[in-house]
Amino acid sequence: MKDNKNLKSHINHSTLKKYLDIYKEELYERVIPFWLKYSLDKKHGGYFTCLDEDGKIYDTKKYMWLQARQVWLFSKLYNTVEQKSEWLNAAKLGIDFIRKYGVTPEGRVYFSMTRDGKPYHIQRKIFSECFYVMALSEYAKAADSKKILNEALKVFKKILIWSKDLSLVGRPKLSGAPPSSSLAMPMIMLDLVDGMMKAHKNLNYKKVADDCVREICLHAKNNIKVVLENIGADGSLLDSPEGRILNPGHAIEAAWFLLHYNREKQDKEIEKTGLQIIDWSLEKGWDKKYGGIYYFLDYKNMPLMPLEWSMKLWWPHTEALYALLLAYSITNNKKYWKQFEKIHQWAFHHFQDKKYGEWYGYLDRQGNKTHTLKGGAYKGCFHVPRFLLYSIQLLEKEINNLY
Amino acid sequence: MKDNKNLKSHINHSTLKKYLDIYKEELYERVIPFWLKYSLDKKHGGYFTCLDEDGKIYDTKKYMWLQARQVWLFSKLYNTVEQKSEWLNAAKLGIDFIRKYGVTPEGRVYFSMTRDGKPYHIQRKIFSECFYVMALSEYAKAADSKKILNEALKVFKKILIWSKDLSLVGRPKLSGAPPSSSLAMPMIMLDLVDGMMKAHKNLNYKKVADDCVREICLHAKNNIKVVLENIGADGSLLDSPEGRILNPGHAIEAAWFLLHYNREKQDKEIEKTGLQIIDWSLEKGWDKKYGGIYYFLDYKNMPLMPLEWSMKLWWPHTEALYALLLAYSITNNKKYWKQFEKIHQWAFHHFQDKKYGEWYGYLDRQGNKTHTLKGGAYKGCFHVPRFLLYSIQLLEKEINNLY
Repeated sequence: MKDNKNLKSHINHSTLKKYLDIYKEELYERVIPFWLKYSLDKKHGGYFTCLDEDGKIYDTKKYMWLQARQVWLFSKLYNTVEQKSEWLNAAKLGIDFIRKYGVTPEGRVYFSMTRDGKPYHIQRKIFSECFYVMALSEYAKAADSKKILNEALKVFKKILIWSKDLSLVGRPKLSGAPPSSSLAMPMIMLDLVDGMMKAHKNLNYKKVADDCVREICLHAKNNIKVVLENIGADGSLLDSPEGRILNPGHAIEAAWFLLHYNREKQDKEIEKTGLQIIDWSLEKGWDKKYGGIYYFLDYKNMPLMPLEWSMKLWWPHTEALYALLLAYSITNNKKYWKQFEKIHQWAFHHFQDKKYGEWYGYLDRQGNKTHTLKGGAYKGCFHVPRFLLYSIQLLEKEINNLY
Repeated sequence: MKDNKNLKSHINHSTLKKYLDIYKEELYERVIPFWLKYSLDKKHGGYFTCLDEDGKIYDTKKYMWLQARQVWLFSKLYNTVEQKSEWLNAAKLGIDFIRKYGVTPEGRVYFSMTRDGKPYHIQRKIFSECFYVMALSEYAKAADSKKILNEALKVFKKILIWSKDLSLVGRPKLSGAPPSSSLAMPMIMLDLVDGMMKAHKNLNYKKVADDCVREICLHAKNNIKVVLENIGADGSLLDSPEGRILNPGHAIEAAWFLLHYNREKQDKEIEKTGLQIIDWSLEKGWDKKYGGIYYFLDYKNMPLMPLEWSMKLWWPHTEALYALLLAYSITNNKKYWKQFEKIHQWAFHHFQDKKYGEWYGYLDRQGNKTHTLKGGAYKGCFHVPRFLLYSIQLLEKEINNLY
C-alpha cells in the first residue's frame, strides 16, 4: 500500500486542471443549458423531463421525483456557485408547482401529475416525499425563507414516521415478508439529513444520520465483500433473489454519502467502509468484457429477475466518477485516480452528447444506445449535473491544496 | 389475394406432419418433463417456478400467476389429451396450494407467497384472481368437481365487479388519470370466459365475451394500423408514452383469443380484425435487422419508457406461432404459413434447449441470451406448452382435413 500513497506528485496541476475544465464546460455549456432551454414549463410551472435527445418533449407529465431533484439542483447551484437569478427562478418554477399541486392533505407527494397539476399516480413508497424535503430545504436556503424551511421540517417529521412503517402509506404488512432493510431508505435519509444540516447550521439530525450510517454499514458484508441491496432487519442474509441482488451504482452512491457525512465526523471506521464499498462494487460491478458498470448483479451468480440487469445506465457511472475523485482526495491513493480516468473515458465516450447536451441514459451490455432520450420518468436534471458540480468543487479544492 | 388462397395444395401432408412431430417431441419429451421433474414441491405443495436452465431452484417463493397457469395447463392436458393420473396429480398439487394459502378472506389472490404459503406480496391488480379462476374452472372439469366449479364462479363474480373499479383493490382513483382501457383486461377476460364456456357447456357468458370483443376491437386502430395497449375509455388516442405504446406479442395473443372465440360465433368482422391485428403486429413488431419480435414499440417512434423495449422475449414468439397457424387454418393464405415457418426457425434456434428442456426466455435485441433461467416470477409452465399443445391440436386437425 505504501507506494500507492503520497500521490499528489503524480496528479499534477495540469492534469487536475484538464478535468476541471472538461467538467466546467460540460456542466455550464452543455448540461445546465439543456435543462434551462427545454425543461421549463413556463405556462403551468414545473419541469418537462421527458425529453428526447434534441430536447423534444415526448410526455408532458410531471414526474415528482424529478421535479424535486431539479429544484434541489438549481437551488444548490445558486447556494454554492453563484447567486444567478436565472437559477433561482428555475428553482422557484419547480417548487411552486410541487407546493401548489403535488402534496396531498396528508402530506404525501404524488409520483406523477398531468402537465397542469392533476394527480396521475401515487406510489406505496416515500421517495417522492424525501426528494420534496431535499428540494424545500435547499430552496429555503436560496430564497432565505423560514416558511419554506418549516414546510420541509413538517414533511420530514412525517417521513420519520412513515419510514418505520410503510403500511401507513398503503403497503400491506404480510406475514411472509418479515421486516427487512432496503439500502435505498437509509441512503436517501442520510443524504437528506446531511444536506439539511449543511444548508441550515442550526438543524441537528446527527442521531438520525448515525442510525442511517449504521444501517448502511449493515448492508456492507465484509466476509463476502459485497453490498447487499436487501437484508433482514437484523442484518441477516436473505436466501432469495432479493437477498442476493447487488446494485453497484447504488452502493457506490451510498459510499460517497457516507464519506460526505464523514467529512465533519472524521470516523475512521466509516471512512474504511465507504472506501471498501467503492472497491468491492467496482471489482464486481465493472464489466471486464465490454466495459461499463452493470445495473444489477447476483452475488452468487444466480439468475437475476430484472430484465435490464446487464444494461449500462448513466447514473452508476456519474456516481462512480464522483466517488472515485472523493476517494482519491481522501486517501491520495493513485488506484482511485486511475479508476477515475478509466471510467471517465468510458462514460464520456458512451453517454456524452456534444451536439445537444445532457447525457444519454441507457445502453445495452455491449454499450450500444438503446434509448435516444435525455430525460424520462426517472432521468432528469440531477445525476449528471450533481456529479459535475461536486467534482468541480472537489477538483478546485485539490488544485488549491497544491499551493 | 386470389393466388394466395387455396393453399392446402402447397402445405402437404409431409410438411404438416414434420411440424407435428417436432411439436409433439418438444412438448412431451422436453417441456412437460422439465416441469414435472423440477417444479413440483412435494413437501409444501404448489410449484417452484424460479428454475435455472438445468432446473436448479434459485428462489423458492410461489408466484401465484404461475401456480394458477400451471394448474390450468396440466388440467387442460388431462381434459384434452389423455387422462393421465400424473397430470391430474400435478394439477392437484397446485390447486390445493392456492386454495389452502393463496386466497384472502375477501377473495383476493396474492401475487407471491413463501414456499410454505405465507403471503409475500399482493398487487393492486386482479390478474392473480383471473388466472386462479381459469385454473379452478379447468381443474373442476378434470376432477369433475361441482364444488371447485362453484368456487370459480364465486371469485369470477367478484372479478366482474373489481374489473370495473380497481379502487376496490386499492388502486386510487386520481383526477389526472381519467378512465382508460388497457388491452390486458378485456383480453384476459375474453380468454377466461371462453375457456369456462368450453369446459362447462352449461355456462353462458356470451354477453361478457361480446363486451370484451368490442373493447379489444376498440384498441385496433385501422387508420394507423396498430393495436394500442392503452386508450381512453371511449376509444380515443392518448397523447403520451402510455397511449403510444405497442406490445406486438400481446396484440397477437389478443388476436388468437378473438379467433378462438369466433370459432363458434363465425362473425366475419371479428375474423377480419383478428387477422389484421396479426398482420399489423408482425409488420411493425418483427425486427428486420436482427430478427425476433420486439417487446415494446412506440407507434410514433418516440422514446420508450421501458428499459427492455428492444429485448426479445420467448412468449411473443410462442403466441405468434400459434396465431399464424390459426390464421393459416382459417384463411388457407400461404403468407401466414410462410411467416409461421420463418418465426419457427428463429424461435427454435434462439429459445430451445435440447439439453434440459423448456425454453430460454430472454434475449437482447441482437439475440444473445441475457438470462439462463427457464422460469421466474413471470415465466412458468404456460406459454411454451400452451402454444405447443394448441398447435399440435390444430396441425392434427389440418392433417385430418387433407383426407
